[in-house]
Amino acid sequence: MRALLTNDDGILAPGLGALRRQMLRDGWEVDVVAPDSEQSAVGHAITLRGPLTIQKVNEGGAFLGYAVAGTPADCVKLALRCLLSEPPDVVISGINPGLNTGVAAFYSGTVGAAREAALSGAPAIAVSLAGPSHFDFSYAAEFTCRLASTVAERRLTEGTYLSVSIPGLPRGQIKGVVVASQTRSRYREAFECEVGPDGGESYWLAGDLEVLDDLEDSDHNAISRDMVAVVPLHCDMTDYKAVKLLRKWRLKP
Amino acid sequence: MRALLTNDDGILAPGLGALRRQMLRDGWEVDVVAPDSEQSAVGHAITLRGPLTIQKVNEGGAFLGYAVAGTPADCVKLALRCLLSEPPDVVISGINPGLNTGVAAFYSGTVGAAREAALSGAPAIAVSLAGPSHFDFSYAAEFTCRLASTVAERRLTEGTYLSVSIPGLPRGQIKGVVVASQTRSRYREAFECEVGPDGGESYWLAGDLEVLDDLEDSDHNAISRDMVAVVPLHCDMTDYKAVKLLRKWRLKP
Repeated sequence: MRALLTNDDGILAPGLGALRRQMLRDGWEVDVVAPDSEQSAVGHAITLRGPLTIQKVNEGGAFLGYAVAGTPADCVKLALRCLLSEPPDVVISGINPGLNTGVAAFYSGTVGAAREAALSGAPAIAVSLAGPSHFDFSYAAEFTCRLASTVAERRLTEGTYLSVSIPGLPRGQIKGVVVASQTRSRYREAFECEVGPDGGESYWLAGDLEVLDDLEDSDHNAISRDMVAVVPLHCDMTDYKAVKLLRKWRLKP
Repeated sequence: MRALLTNDDGILAPGLGALRRQMLRDGWEVDVVAPDSEQSAVGHAITLRGPLTIQKVNEGGAFLGYAVAGTPADCVKLALRCLLSEPPDVVISGINPGLNTGVAAFYSGTVGAAREAALSGAPAIAVSLAGPSHFDFSYAAEFTCRLASTVAERRLTEGTYLSVSIPGLPRGQIKGVVVASQTRSRYREAFECEVGPDGGESYWLAGDLEVLDDLEDSDHNAISRDMVAVVPLHCDMTDYKAVKLLRKWRLKP
């Protein structure tokens, strides 16, 4: 079995490293194509206005993978179209420190990479892990590895990919797995305004996640109950209920 | 009625200007908060690693709006939280030259801005217009204005926003309006590889949209029949069919 790993934290990030080591131990062939620098919150951005430069990266004298001066979605495009000699059985993005539950799935470069893989027809999983600030990725890596085997074997429907959120707890304290929905949420932003010496204003984004619906089957709720959340996301964003509703508006050209 | 306008082409882009003039003619109050530079294909990216600087921009001696050194989604956050004195009845992103049908809705900064507005609970519309290369935005602006009035009056369900794609044709040749779904599609990428003087490789992204399902009610199909496509998109990406399916996998922690 063959996996492509990427992330939004950069090719040398410890979350990707922990996952790679676990996959190699479990007998996977692993390719790594990841950004050369941190790309948090770039969502599904791609690079149209310049070329993507790539670098071969070694670790401990051995080839680790390709570092791309671009976004996570760029990495997936470039890997699947140009860099890999064989197509992967699964594409995994992460492990990202910091959860991608709820609305974070839109901003997350980690999730953007998994969506990009799904758009190309590859089975794809994005993985994020809750704090604490010093991360132990070992349980998350082991769970992800097992899930990847299951996905490669059982397949996802075309256009579906998974966003996995894992509590930041030792293995023995994880209470279960919930196949969950994306929590309805938003950021309660609190921009901090700075006035520069020239009188110009600049704003720093800060804020907390505000949960709007804490349904029992949502990813946020699963995490709060010390359970792993596995959320299947869809590449078709059409709101079919609204399609029916809007047809009654009888819009004129 | 009050509208917030933004885009991904920059505050001085002609598509935004044409829409603003039409809205003012139709009696709307218009606020403009838009990127200070082109931000195509940034998707739903936001700026976490630096402050957002803003500038007041005048046009013909009168205040036009705020230019933000950030992404379209940043503009919407900053407008709704900090810059506007009154909340808008509708947020409109565009008019973007170049269609956001199908998979383009994921990469599009125009659509990202509308989604950001929807996440904040504001009625939101993203608008794109097909070529030719010299754009006449007048019909698109007029249609958008009428649609904005309808949306402000009839309301969308919370978490739903609209992506509107308009054929690049004179008014009289537009054959109708389809409330459509997002076309299942992908880019058939053809990266062009350059080898630099140091032997390093760099890749330029090129490629065409490949339509995977050309359903009659899809946005791509509507455009090909010279009709305006109005696609309601949803902020909940959960694939509920897959939720049911994956529960049968009985995943273990």
